[in-house]
Amino acid sequence: MRNLTLLTDLYQLTMMNGYFKNGVDKNTVVFDLFFRKNPCQNSYTIIAGIEQVIDYIENINFDEEDLTYLKSLNLFNDEFINYLRNFKFTGTIYSVEEGSIMFPYEPILRVKAPAIQAQLIETALLNIINFQSLIATKASRICTAAKGDSVFEFGLRRAQGPDAGIYGARAAVIGGCVGTSNVLAGKKFDIPVIGTHAHSWIQTFETELEAFRAYAKVYPNNTLLLVDTYNVLNSGVPNAITVFKELREQGYKPQGIRIDSGDIAYLSKEARKMLDAAGFEDTTIVASSDLDEEVINNLKLQDAAVNAWGVGTNLITSKGCPALGGVYKLSAAEENGELVPKIKISENPEKITNPGYKKVVRIYDIENGKAQADLIMLDDEEININEPLTIFHPLYTWKKKTFRNYRIREMLVPLYEDGTLVYKRKSMKEICEYTKAELDTLWPEYRRLNRPQLYKVDLSKKLWDLKNEMMGQFREE
Amino acid sequence: MRNLTLLTDLYQLTMMNGYFKNGVDKNTVVFDLFFRKNPCQNSYTIIAGIEQVIDYIENINFDEEDLTYLKSLNLFNDEFINYLRNFKFTGTIYSVEEGSIMFPYEPILRVKAPAIQAQLIETALLNIINFQSLIATKASRICTAAKGDSVFEFGLRRAQGPDAGIYGARAAVIGGCVGTSNVLAGKKFDIPVIGTHAHSWIQTFETELEAFRAYAKVYPNNTLLLVDTYNVLNSGVPNAITVFKELREQGYKPQGIRIDSGDIAYLSKEARKMLDAAGFEDTTIVASSDLDEEVINNLKLQDAAVNAWGVGTNLITSKGCPALGGVYKLSAAEENGELVPKIKISENPEKITNPGYKKVVRIYDIENGKAQADLIMLDDEEININEPLTIFHPLYTWKKKTFRNYRIREMLVPLYEDGTLVYKRKSMKEICEYTKAELDTLWPEYRRLNRPQLYKVDLSKKLWDLKNEMMGQFREE
Repeated sequence: MRNLTLLTDLYQLTMMNGYFKNGVDKNTVVFDLFFRKNPCQNSYTIIAGIEQVIDYIENINFDEEDLTYLKSLNLFNDEFINYLRNFKFTGTIYSVEEGSIMFPYEPILRVKAPAIQAQLIETALLNIINFQSLIATKASRICTAAKGDSVFEFGLRRAQGPDAGIYGARAAVIGGCVGTSNVLAGKKFDIPVIGTHAHSWIQTFETELEAFRAYAKVYPNNTLLLVDTYNVLNSGVPNAITVFKELREQGYKPQGIRIDSGDIAYLSKEARKMLDAAGFEDTTIVASSDLDEEVINNLKLQDAAVNAWGVGTNLITSKGCPALGGVYKLSAAEENGELVPKIKISENPEKITNPGYKKVVRIYDIENGKAQADLIMLDDEEININEPLTIFHPLYTWKKKTFRNYRIREMLVPLYEDGTLVYKRKSMKEICEYTKAELDTLWPEYRRLNRPQLYKVDLSKKLWDLKNEMMGQFREE
Repeated sequence: MRNLTLLTDLYQLTMMNGYFKNGVDKNTVVFDLFFRKNPCQNSYTIIAGIEQVIDYIENINFDEEDLTYLKSLNLFNDEFINYLRNFKFTGTIYSVEEGSIMFPYEPILRVKAPAIQAQLIETALLNIINFQSLIATKASRICTAAKGDSVFEFGLRRAQGPDAGIYGARAAVIGGCVGTSNVLAGKKFDIPVIGTHAHSWIQTFETELEAFRAYAKVYPNNTLLLVDTYNVLNSGVPNAITVFKELREQGYKPQGIRIDSGDIAYLSKEARKMLDAAGFEDTTIVASSDLDEEVINNLKLQDAAVNAWGVGTNLITSKGCPALGGVYKLSAAEENGELVPKIKISENPEKITNPGYKKVVRIYDIENGKAQADLIMLDDEEININEPLTIFHPLYTWKKKTFRNYRIREMLVPLYEDGTLVYKRKSMKEICEYTKAELDTLWPEYRRLNRPQLYKVDLSKKLWDLKNEMMGQFREE
């Protein structure tokens, strides 16, 4: 495991030293990790990276090389360096499960820890969760557009560095992709790897037909041929069909073709006709050319005869929305031995935080199993599910909704209790099944690619009162 | 060092196995790594990541765990797995120097190696060079907008995974940033790290003034205070001035303030007046709020009183253009013991490759030292600098230009000779100085942020003839 202890902003360390020097380092604080906006105009975000957060925390360790480096900065004295030498995370973290669907302003992780510890981990937690959640969500959009067709993640060469390729592939699979071209990600996370050959394969042989034959010889059971090196319909597909016939005569079942350029709608439909006419109705056509959810959506509208989509750059970088703006904000702090709610005021109402030690409750319709709304509450609040539950919009408070036949679910589960890992890791298969089940609880209206319906996230009355009281107090001052 | 041997697309391995099985694995091939478009509508690209390419190649090693995994895919037999067990890169690579300025279609790396080896490394090379070059170029644009002000890289929490933060910080510094908030990047590459405190520091104390005092007590020589937790002009700046006066009385020199929200133009100018009126004319104002080159440019046009800029998300993800589309294309291959030029034809003229074993020559004006044009040539061509040199546009061939008082420079230098590393690594300081000197060879017209002048990249007559002949041959077929 890589030691990412120094994967933090310098100001975390200067603040830690400041708490240490001011004798407030052991004061308990609470931070919420949340985002204010779903990526890509989506109505939901798939949270991914929780397991890498665990890897990170388990491996926190300032080694001697780290400490020598920190000393060289001339910002920290030996007492603080010694403190770091023995640093261990002893806090409590609640988190959503890997692959959960969450909405703006909801705590995704809730960290309760001594100030000095909670501060250190902010940057890495955000780095990990922001990126994987972004890519899982982007992948989900692309899979929605593909309407059940297989989607493959092919973006490693354009990913923002090795980790972006590796963890991006993982997140893409959580978001619905069925495999990746990235071998290291395949090995690391036990996810299917996919790939056949490139144009360079064709070019290293004297003719396309010769190259196809050479490939089929080595992979007679997995012959998927890239047909656009010279000309798809005049050269690639006819040559592929020649080789497919040879395979058939030898008793093999050819797999199909891949088209990587040109007009995918036209070429795929023509190629389909040619393949079908030659008796290869059950071969696959894979498309892979600068695709994203919009392009796939449009190609589908024109009945492109594509069975599987290889998506690269636009998925792995989430082009158009390359960052999820997750933040980590103080919501409570110990004062004279008691945990006091904290709020961050801003001129911009969207940037005002929700104070206090909170939880998130999801309300499901018992009859159809669909998610109806979420409620952000204080942690000590209870819902009596034997009584109707009325929620209200936090700004337009006259907008109310009452649930009668409902069940509730607390979204945050224990990850760490007093420094001890208590979360059970899941296999990728389990995570993918979980995310699929999560998506099934959303009405299709929330999954529309353009202008989806907004999912309701309200505050409990008690939290709403607390927040308004604190905002009022601040204004008076 | 991390072993990234499996950081490749599966099709590289299936092709390698295919070459192996077809007995052409040892045939020498030549691949060029190049891009077709500068990122962000820039007119140049700063190449970064060469040293990480070296790290990657030096550490290529299929370990037993890798081999067990590959066997489990049921695509490769023991003979091939044994070959991989002893895999070593024995090829020759020429590359531009780290931090060089390059232009579309120019070979940045030229790999000459046995087919089986050249294929493996494609994906990692692209992954590394694409990302770091993208961020170095984006940083260069942002620094151009900042007109000599310091620019800090603050994006780790929004970077696309840990590596994107780490290598992105490195690339940002090559592109002109003077430091990063990322401690791990600072340690790894010996680049300045920067940071003071966050809003959470303020919030953990009962009042802003108390928080400022606590900070100044710990860092009396580096007191840079974040002034926008409550209200910049009514609270933050007056409190900062109070603490600055206390520091002054104790003989310390306060450093300045940071503004992280609100209208930076207005707030910085007002804050400047207040600081100056209190006798703190030489304090710094740092701005850091969703900045990029356009925002900085506009704030500068309104005389924002900002001395240093902290840029996060938009730099580290290169928002708006989050991928550089570098490619790796076959340009020559051994046939019957001879290296034969290869071309990739496409309906899209921009996608037709330049064939043959090539080099890049830059032509400088001797008098003013400015770069005049680049010429892509075959490797065995020579320029007699005692004679005038005439170049011509590859498409509009009547557009010609003749140089008389010029010097030339070959951009590609040896990185590997027959598998042996021959490139001398440079310190980050040397790289940054080199890149700065590179930028100084560009007329300002090429460095304009919007619609810059396009830099001339022509083909030598011999290369142009070869390319046209090969295109003609293909059309006849």
